Amino acid sequence: MSSKYPWSVRGCLPLCALTLEAALILLFFFFTYYNASLEDQEGLVASYQVGQDLTVMAALGLGFLTSNLQRHTWSSVAFNLFMLALGVQWAILLDGFLSQLSPGKVVIKLFSIRLATMSAMSVLISVGAVLGKVNLAQLVVMVLVELTVFGTMRMVISIIFKTDYHMNLMHIHVFAAYFGLTVARCLPKPLPQGTKDKEQIATRSSLSAMLGTLFLWMFWPSFNSALLRSPIERKNAVFNTYYALAVSAVTAMSVSSLAHPQGKINMTYMHNAVLAGGVAVGISCHLIRSPWLAMVLGLVAGLISIGGAKCLPVCFNRVLGIHDSYGVHYTFGLPGLLGEITYIVLVVLRTVWAGYYMIGFQVLLCTGELSLAMAIAVMSGLLTGLLLNLKIWKAPHVAKYFDDQAFWEFPHLAVGF
Amino acid sequence: MSSKYPWSVRGCLPLCALTLEAALILLFFFFTYYNASLEDQEGLVASYQVGQDLTVMAALGLGFLTSNLQRHTWSSVAFNLFMLALGVQWAILLDGFLSQLSPGKVVIKLFSIRLATMSAMSVLISVGAVLGKVNLAQLVVMVLVELTVFGTMRMVISIIFKTDYHMNLMHIHVFAAYFGLTVARCLPKPLPQGTKDKEQIATRSSLSAMLGTLFLWMFWPSFNSALLRSPIERKNAVFNTYYALAVSAVTAMSVSSLAHPQGKINMTYMHNAVLAGGVAVGISCHLIRSPWLAMVLGLVAGLISIGGAKCLPVCFNRVLGIHDSYGVHYTFGLPGLLGEITYIVLVVLRTVWAGYYMIGFQVLLCTGELSLAMAIAVMSGLLTGLLLNLKIWKAPHVAKYFDDQAFWEFPHLAVGF
Amino acid sequence: MSSKYPWSVRGCLPLCALTLEAALILLFFFFTYYNASLEDQEGLVASYQVGQDLTVMAALGLGFLTSNLQRHTWSSVAFNLFMLALGVQWAILLDGFLSQLSPGKVVIKLFSIRLATMSAMSVLISVGAVLGKVNLAQLVVMVLVELTVFGTMRMVISIIFKTDYHMNLMHIHVFAAYFGLTVARCLPKPLPQGTKDKEQIATRSSLSAMLGTLFLWMFWPSFNSALLRSPIERKNAVFNTYYALAVSAVTAMSVSSLAHPQGKINMTYMHNAVLAGGVAVGISCHLIRSPWLAMVLGLVAGLISIGGAKCLPVCFNRVLGIHDSYGVHYTFGLPGLLGEITYIVLVVLRTVWAGYYMIGFQVLLCTGELSLAMAIAVMSGLLTGLLLNLKIWKAPHVAKYFDDQAFWEFPHLAVGF
Repeated sequence: MSSKYPWSVRGCLPLCALTLEAALILLFFFFTYYNASLEDQEGLVASYQVGQDLTVMAALGLGFLTSNLQRHTWSSVAFNLFMLALGVQWAILLDGFLSQLSPGKVVIKLFSIRLATMSAMSVLISVGAVLGKVNLAQLVVMVLVELTVFGTMRMVISIIFKTDYHMNLMHIHVFAAYFGLTVARCLPKPLPQGTKDKEQIATRSSLSAMLGTLFLWMFWPSFNSALLRSPIERKNAVFNTYYALAVSAVTAMSVSSLAHPQGKINMTYMHNAVLAGGVAVGISCHLIRSPWLAMVLGLVAGLISIGGAKCLPVCFNRVLGIHDSYGVHYTFGLPGLLGEITYIVLVVLRTVWAGYYMIGFQVLLCTGELSLAMAIAVMSGLLTGLLLNLKIWKAPHVAKYFDDQAFWEFPHLAVGF
Repeated sequence: MSSKYPWSVRGCLPLCALTLEAALILLFFFFTYYNASLEDQEGLVASYQVGQDLTVMAALGLGFLTSNLQRHTWSSVAFNLFMLALGVQWAILLDGFLSQLSPGKVVIKLFSIRLATMSAMSVLISVGAVLGKVNLAQLVVMVLVELTVFGTMRMVISIIFKTDYHMNLMHIHVFAAYFGLTVARCLPKPLPQGTKDKEQIATRSSLSAMLGTLFLWMFWPSFNSALLRSPIERKNAVFNTYYALAVSAVTAMSVSSLAHPQGKINMTYMHNAVLAGGVAVGISCHLIRSPWLAMVLGLVAGLISIGGAKCLPVCFNRVLGIHDSYGVHYTFGLPGLLGEITYIVLVVLRTVWAGYYMIGFQVLLCTGELSLAMAIAVMSGLLTGLLLNLKIWKAPHVAKYFDDQAFWEFPHLAVGF
Repeated sequence: MSSKYPWSVRGCLPLCALTLEAALILLFFFFTYYNASLEDQEGLVASYQVGQDLTVMAALGLGFLTSNLQRHTWSSVAFNLFMLALGVQWAILLDGFLSQLSPGKVVIKLFSIRLATMSAMSVLISVGAVLGKVNLAQLVVMVLVELTVFGTMRMVISIIFKTDYHMNLMHIHVFAAYFGLTVARCLPKPLPQGTKDKEQIATRSSLSAMLGTLFLWMFWPSFNSALLRSPIERKNAVFNTYYALAVSAVTAMSVSSLAHPQGKINMTYMHNAVLAGGVAVGISCHLIRSPWLAMVLGLVAGLISIGGAKCLPVCFNRVLGIHDSYGVHYTFGLPGLLGEITYIVLVVLRTVWAGYYMIGFQVLLCTGELSLAMAIAVMSGLLTGLLLNLKIWKAPHVAKYFDDQAFWEFPHLAVGF
């Protein structure tokens, strides 16, 4: 970080990535095989389509969602693809190792690819808080550490609290948001004046961020229902997510204009807040049995997300010294927390109907689960942040934050530079 | 409209939208529940995928299709999402109330979400004629009125003429186009000189309009087959739509160059005309039993659409004083009319084979259906247009037409304005 | 070609295209009918979705992949759609005629549309080598000739070597790449100085090329598995393609930075190289039974593709005088060759296990197949190239290469020009 000149990734990145790939290939060689039977009763094509929807959300949705900074579009989209491709490979191995525990080869099924894509999305969410302030080598480290921690956390939770895949994974929003924010806390802050023009939102790029938002919005029901086994639960999940998203889109756009003195809508707030409903309904989407509850959740999530977008940068981030590049906190963090709290309330209500004596225990269980996820997120985020601050990664200089030119070859600049 | 200054939506829109959302949530609370059984024999995932295709067409296809004006891209895409999210909620309630008639709760099924998305597309089509000349509050009114009228019209037609869902809904193109045009007739026309540069088509935006066109083009077979029950009819619908679209794409691009003195192709004409085949074949796509007929329809629709794009702005719009922002008339109106006429001819031919005595009656029935749809469209459009002209909506001033700045906060303009 | 002024396509293209469409409609009228039964045991919707994925890859993926030149975006995307729409019609007829041989009508099934879309992609790949140097009339000729040759080649191979649809079609990458390169060899080269600024890669366009790349990357498993009949083979194909793509994306991005003195990543190389894994694994994707082999293939394909991108323009293209507009050679050609060689090795290994005496014969068979495909590609490419050089097509002048203005009406230039 002592160098003021753009750092060359030439020496480190290819070596590091190729070694990693070789290691992964060896691991796959020794420890995996394909499932030769047809595991899925719902049909190969249908099962494949669900996985496809998730890939579209991860590669295209999350990639383009963060593409609205004037001079950081290439990196946002391409690094996202890189992290997804790497993360999926590591997540499959890790899930395999953790879930069977006994020694033996890992079976690769369509379901495990689906699970790995969803796990990899935790990194793609977290990275929204640090993107533009790190280079590819640092991102490789972050992918490996975060996926390992996330996988371990899910296994620990499933062992302690006896929850299924859907419940484990739906802590993803809270986990990823607070992991990312803690990492962002540890990284050097961008200079306030220098990055002013780089942080400007380009008119054209905003349209590509809108494209990412739309893809996430359209396919979110697939995300929330992908890990549910019972068809009825899946249908409920699809319905609830659909309604929550519809309401939060309407809310986001209309309330966003409240936050501006002349009633103008903020495009960036909107990109994030239209998704709040899907995030908030995630963890309880299979339990809600009527649309109005999902709609209320979508409404509140939209309000919270817009409120967070307006207040957090001033109150929270400035006090704690966090620079949240793409608003991960109010896109995934706060709506995720709302979802967790709603889940606890729902469980309590259900227990009340069953009999009073269990309430305390149930609340303890659910809050324990949430606190565990948060604690692991913050602690591992702190560790990762410190790790990323090491000089060996040759992080980009603060003056070069949010600048595609540090990483990409521009043809019209090829001679000079 | 007397104010020359940009109007603030701050006071009205959030209040209006949130009240509406609260009312919708209450309605859902009292009158709906989820279908707890698995209604669909074709499988949950397959059924969900069809609905997904429709959502992609509505949110992405129709949103980006209208994004090619230099200074109106943000509004086109985002307002489209807003109207879709709002419209779908209202359409589900309305369809439920109208279709069961007897008092009781409305069951929400995957099929009803599909139907609601398609109904909501009627607003998204109509709005192409008025976009850039109205604000969000006016669009909320338009969504509510048009969906109510469209739903009622479909129910009336299904009761009088005993038609099924597919037939009712396929009047959507004619209905939506003439509804939109009538509304556009009532709104103040843009100034001829002032909006010249705003109506310019941006090179980059044209690519995003092309993206919208492509998504509509690719998924149109899903639209035309979504409401058909019999698998054979669905397959025919897919085949016919596919062929009609292929031919109209070829026709549109080659004939477009005829309309220019130097043989150059007009991008805007093309965006609209490649879709003409899908529109024209919509109402009779399940009846056509061989590809050549669909191809002829696609060819004629492409010719009509390009012809309309060239002639209508001069002959028709100027005489009637209609300003058609995005060419709804020649994209959906004329090809839709062609489709309706083809349907009448097909029915007549089929009746001829069955025996002569019924022809008159059949022609009467079909033309009655078409006339009813057109008459309701024009009348309700007139009413809506007059309603939107009320001063309480604080419509944007004609000098501010087609201008994103009236609605959106631009970061680089945040201080000044 | 003697004219220095922009040529008007007005006289020739519409006439030519409409006559062609009329001929196609007549052919469909006399020789085709729809399959009235439900042919597909996996369900209509599932079967339709696979075809849909292919259409998305062809219309959107390949269309936007080639959209990154500063002044040739409109043509890239729109001509791609035109060729797809035309090609699919011709390919269906041709496949029908060739596959049944006995006189009689051609049955149109969902499977035949799928096959036709994949065949049409051969033209869309080839055209990457010549785009920007030809006009629409020349492209029409190229579509007809290449599809006829490709269809014939597939039938010849399937008769001689008794291979199935998947194996026939997977020669598409090698065939299309070398066909396109040979055609490009025959066309006049662009002026080295004049086109400098036109060949510049626009920052914004690169994002749309990235969009195309992503859609190809996400849906490539559908492409590689679309023609396989056995569910187990399809699943293997999906798995292997998925892993090969993931590894080649990681490899491409990290190795690309090796090729630049300051370790910067080249966006154009990356667009092409992330797909290399999918291409390389295509022909043997159903045979590979463990992920590591697919991953090794993806790794090697990524390396070869980046290496080719760096070296070919200097060593190969300059010597042979080929101008490869969009890098078809290293995107599809080299990885395709790698895939063919891998297939031969796999077959040999399998034969070794079965017994030694057959090896020579098997190698002979496989290399014969590959040589036949390559020979037909180069010969027919040569013929097509000579055909396209005829003056009747009025090809664009070399000074007008890579220029949208030669084909498109720009509103802001409407008066002048």
